[in-house]
Amino acid sequence: MTDAPTTAPVARAATAGEVLAGYLTAQAGVFLRALPQAVGEAGSRPGALPASAQAADDLLRAVRRIGGALHTFAPVFDPAWAQESRTELRWLIDLLAQEPGYRRRADRLLGALDSLADTSPDGAGMLAGHPGAPKARALLERQLTLARTRAHTALLQELRSARLHALADRMTLLAGEVPLVPEAAAEPAVALLPRTAAALGALVAAAERLPWQRSAQAYAGAGLHRLGAAGTEPDMVPAPRGAADADVALAADDAPWLRARILVKRARYALEVCSAPDGELLELDRVLGLHQEASDAAVTVATAARTPRITPATAYVLGVVHADQRLDVEAARYAFGRQWPAVAPGLAGPAAVVSD
Amino acid sequence: MTDAPTTAPVARAATAGEVLAGYLTAQAGVFLRALPQAVGEAGSRPGALPASAQAADDLLRAVRRIGGALHTFAPVFDPAWAQESRTELRWLIDLLAQEPGYRRRADRLLGALDSLADTSPDGAGMLAGHPGAPKARALLERQLTLARTRAHTALLQELRSARLHALADRMTLLAGEVPLVPEAAAEPAVALLPRTAAALGALVAAAERLPWQRSAQAYAGAGLHRLGAAGTEPDMVPAPRGAADADVALAADDAPWLRARILVKRARYALEVCSAPDGELLELDRVLGLHQEASDAAVTVATAARTPRITPATAYVLGVVHADQRLDVEAARYAFGRQWPAVAPGLAGPAAVVSD
Repeated sequence: MTDAPTTAPVARAATAGEVLAGYLTAQAGVFLRALPQAVGEAGSRPGALPASAQAADDLLRAVRRIGGALHTFAPVFDPAWAQESRTELRWLIDLLAQEPGYRRRADRLLGALDSLADTSPDGAGMLAGHPGAPKARALLERQLTLARTRAHTALLQELRSARLHALADRMTLLAGEVPLVPEAAAEPAVALLPRTAAALGALVAAAERLPWQRSAQAYAGAGLHRLGAAGTEPDMVPAPRGAADADVALAADDAPWLRARILVKRARYALEVCSAPDGELLELDRVLGLHQEASDAAVTVATAARTPRITPATAYVLGVVHADQRLDVEAARYAFGRQWPAVAPGLAGPAAVVSD
Repeated sequence: MTDAPTTAPVARAATAGEVLAGYLTAQAGVFLRALPQAVGEAGSRPGALPASAQAADDLLRAVRRIGGALHTFAPVFDPAWAQESRTELRWLIDLLAQEPGYRRRADRLLGALDSLADTSPDGAGMLAGHPGAPKARALLERQLTLARTRAHTALLQELRSARLHALADRMTLLAGEVPLVPEAAAEPAVALLPRTAAALGALVAAAERLPWQRSAQAYAGAGLHRLGAAGTEPDMVPAPRGAADADVALAADDAPWLRARILVKRARYALEVCSAPDGELLELDRVLGLHQEASDAAVTVATAARTPRITPATAYVLGVVHADQRLDVEAARYAFGRQWPAVAPGLAGPAAVVSD
């Protein structure tokens, strides 16, 4: 990250356009400084590793913030430009997030397995000394290394693509001038507050629909038994029954929580644009991040368990590890349920005030 | 159960011997009334089922109470008689508890599996539609039915044994006269209170040594990761490492909790002898009972997973079910950790007063 200010206080800026332009040009600057280091020599020499994980992180942070601002304050921007930019930024997020995602997933799953299979007297786990543990570990490690290598290859290819160069050009233009709708941009800066309030309101509405009352009770068994009805989210279609029923049921159960995380991030960035404190949203974001990582890791384990010709002992260990990850999913929901009642009034309060 | 009073109030009885004699003769009466119904025709005709599960329950309750009183108030009884009686009662408890134990375990495990494999939209579990679920269910059902049948056969054999007839004779004698130590029996009834306080004190001491502070936090992962050190109980010897390491580690982890349940029961029965309210001990007993049933069920699943020639899908499902049972173990510890701080002062308080 840079020392340059990335936000422009609402109070000091005269118009909505000035606030957004200040924020976006700063983020575009972060993007452009981080890009060469994140890409490393990959742009020119095939097979070279990205030079800096920190730069890749900075790049991802800037990309998320720009995308969030373009979504939340959409009416202030040129619609076609904003839509295209969001599509391209989304593409870059998916590209950048994959390899570190697999790396974290391997750390999480192999760490969990090592802990479950630990045989030291002070730390013995429920799989201590189980003959399937080393095989299950090798299987997970092999599959995750393969996935990470594929993601890395895809990243290297795309880092040399015309699509990335076009996005970099787009960010260069953004760092100079933000394509605003003149009338909306000319409004006073406080005109941004109802949009911010709407972002907070969307989060509050989605969070209140989450079954967190169930998760507010410890060990309610929500993670393993009685997953949420597929109809929790109106846009969810009941899935067909088949071999991957369990995966589909789990995905439907997790979907509203993953959606809540997106809304937490949008709310955080909207508050950042307004130079407002983000309350406890960073902590909620962290908790929902753990939820997502455990959910993704559980899918990886379930998939590994369908590998042909594994031994029953290996499959048994994978079953335990899968349940353990779903327990982490449940623990994250429980943590959310404990935090949310304290966070919600602070979000609904300002939202109600600025919407008046 | 009978309507006859099973306790004699300490206040109304003159001596310690009278209180204990009143309690034990009443319990021996329950035993003798329940025995024929519990045995049914098994005593005479091979293969006949016990006539009444309720009578078997009553029998078990009386046996536990007599054994508890003989232990807690040992100095008041003829030592050789009390020791022999406790050995024989312990034998009968083991005999009577096995078959209903397997029945409850089957209900618990098949119920958990059905819930995990449920495919209905409102109740889909994490094993919904998993191809291994029906096979794992059939395997567990087959093994538990076999165990239950064996327990039943053993029970029928023993119900016709000389050993049971001797125990029934012993109870008949007890219903008439309790073999007391004259000097101790002649003491005033309040002399029973220090013994009761000691039973409560033993529970408090054991409970305070339990790692319930860890379990007082939800989702601390105690059930799956980082089991308690084998040295938690002074009489636990670190187990040798081998194929069943995990089982040994789990058993060592559960042992102090199973021990606490025995002490809860002893404390309950001691308070009952003194006609004192049992506070919240009945609820603690229930929670530790769930702990034990989940712990036993987890062992059954781990054993089933070692059945030769099962499919990987079956083994995977058993791994999930095992972890689910260990989650129930953890949930019971959590419930204990929530209840104990409210219960403990009520136990330590009276104990301190009557010990003065």
